[in-house]
Amino acid sequence: MSKYWSDKVKNIEPYVPGEQPKDRKFIKLNTNENPYPPSIKVLNAITKATGESLRLYPDPEGESLRNTIAKYYNLEPSQVFLGNGSDEVLAFSFLAFFNPGDTIVFPQITYSFYEVYASIFGVNYRTIPLDNEFNIPLEGFFIENDGVIFANPNAPTGKALPLKDIRTILEKNAGRVVIVDEAYVDFGGESSVELINEFDNLLVITTLSKSRALAGLRVGFAMGNKDLIEGLNRVKNSINSYTLDRLALAGAEEAIKDDEYFNEIRGRIVQTRERVTKKLLDLGFRVIESKTNFVFISHPAIKGLQLFEKLREKGILVRHFNKPGIENYLRVSIGTDEEMEFFCEKIKEILEMFD
Amino acid sequence: MSKYWSDKVKNIEPYVPGEQPKDRKFIKLNTNENPYPPSIKVLNAITKATGESLRLYPDPEGESLRNTIAKYYNLEPSQVFLGNGSDEVLAFSFLAFFNPGDTIVFPQITYSFYEVYASIFGVNYRTIPLDNEFNIPLEGFFIENDGVIFANPNAPTGKALPLKDIRTILEKNAGRVVIVDEAYVDFGGESSVELINEFDNLLVITTLSKSRALAGLRVGFAMGNKDLIEGLNRVKNSINSYTLDRLALAGAEEAIKDDEYFNEIRGRIVQTRERVTKKLLDLGFRVIESKTNFVFISHPAIKGLQLFEKLREKGILVRHFNKPGIENYLRVSIGTDEEMEFFCEKIKEILEMFD
Repeated sequence: MSKYWSDKVKNIEPYVPGEQPKDRKFIKLNTNENPYPPSIKVLNAITKATGESLRLYPDPEGESLRNTIAKYYNLEPSQVFLGNGSDEVLAFSFLAFFNPGDTIVFPQITYSFYEVYASIFGVNYRTIPLDNEFNIPLEGFFIENDGVIFANPNAPTGKALPLKDIRTILEKNAGRVVIVDEAYVDFGGESSVELINEFDNLLVITTLSKSRALAGLRVGFAMGNKDLIEGLNRVKNSINSYTLDRLALAGAEEAIKDDEYFNEIRGRIVQTRERVTKKLLDLGFRVIESKTNFVFISHPAIKGLQLFEKLREKGILVRHFNKPGIENYLRVSIGTDEEMEFFCEKIKEILEMFD
Repeated sequence: MSKYWSDKVKNIEPYVPGEQPKDRKFIKLNTNENPYPPSIKVLNAITKATGESLRLYPDPEGESLRNTIAKYYNLEPSQVFLGNGSDEVLAFSFLAFFNPGDTIVFPQITYSFYEVYASIFGVNYRTIPLDNEFNIPLEGFFIENDGVIFANPNAPTGKALPLKDIRTILEKNAGRVVIVDEAYVDFGGESSVELINEFDNLLVITTLSKSRALAGLRVGFAMGNKDLIEGLNRVKNSINSYTLDRLALAGAEEAIKDDEYFNEIRGRIVQTRERVTKKLLDLGFRVIESKTNFVFISHPAIKGLQLFEKLREKGILVRHFNKPGIENYLRVSIGTDEEMEFFCEKIKEILEMFD
């Protein structure tokens, strides 16, 4: 604590990202990274961009990447906003669409960064309790003058809302922005991008960190009505004109273009997830039905934190959230088949200790 | 304008960066980029980092790069904060050290982003008028309860304050944070980094974009007392856990380490600046004494905007600010000797038209 800190900085509880181990070698199933490498076309594009031109600022508009994204999603480039990971895009959205004192609503169990964004920008928030199956009761969102944000599929539960429910939320909240965080949508969710031209209050945010295996490159983007996108641009241009460097811009463009590789790796992850789910169910776990690249699991014989620690001892990192209602769950990212085989073996060993 | 925008976004005037031309080939002297390529060691480090590991998140703390910077400046790693360009670091500083309604003071003519940061975060600001020689009257800063920010050397004037004046400002403003923006310091200014261990309210912010020829990589950093740095970390971790991608982290580290190349290119730029200054003086220009990689110039025979337009027609981009007191000045980045030779020739041709 310093006497020079602003009140907000004094009072805020910042987000804590999953551990990035530096010393010991772990099987890393804790931050929902993709177990497969980025497309070789991405790596080639970055290599090509690594040269003298790095002395020049990047294109602040990221025009070429926006064109590529717009074409891919059948939108106009003016409907696309680029950011330094979807986290930055989410943060800018809180500043662009909510005044201090406004209220934004989100599920009680969801990406824990939402309440941090609300706090740092002075936006009030209200949370909607989930049912025992981690379903989101839609009616909770039907408040005309409040904003809405939710992850679809939700994190860390992995559960997805169908498109018709999202349509209902949009219809019932026409007065305020509805933000759908689709970081994990490529692993089995239904994207709401197709509703963008119908609802001018819909902002869809996504990332290349998960399904495109580029967590290390920091690229996310928002899609929505061009006026919403202009609002985000106004925020960006009041904070940092160039949020994406030349290498990220070059690599991201190829990542979007290489649809074949994208489909191959996300397909593999979905298959592995289904196999792991079956094995965990056989071992007596409760496994929430996942549409993401992770599973959310609990076991009647062992506490969440204890299982987390035992796995860590055995060289496997997963994520535990010390939060009421989910304290006995672990979020386990889907790795390669080999990694998940090892994970299941270690789980078995641990469970035998608790028999 | 959209009904969904927040009040701040409705009312703000975002910063407008210098043009990045996409179609026509220009001699680009408008955004203070370095005319020389980045160190080959930087390019090699980026190439080495371009691989499978891009699927993993970067180190959110940037530990290795912070260690390198700390060693270079003779500080502790806990005294270094990394950001996506110095613009992001500046923006985070406004949020970390000022409450809405607090006042920050800066020179009337300076980096025009400061007033944008103040506006977006609801901080009041007061500006200190400069004298006719663009000197900053120190007494303007001596207000015990207001924060202070200034660029040293100043932009777009290029004038530097000596270290003893900065010490005086720090002594007279012990109650609030004093931010010294040293984006251009490597071209002849005196860095205030050596005062950090003496003044716990001093934050020095700098960038790799100018003297290290890496505008395209987006790396800036702040140095100061560890409590100030912790405040910045709290802001960062409330907005975006990973602001620097793996490639930027890898490249930046080598940029700091390759001191030999750094000294070579900044030396060359300083020499070119001195030669250009002399030529422009001979052509009847007023040239403000520059300690940066640009010159700030005006000519009695031609208006600033007109000269800007004539140069553009001839394929040279410079920067004109349509702002009272400097509307007849142009900011001209120092390019290679060849580029500046061409620039001086074209200037001569234009002046002959106005004789």
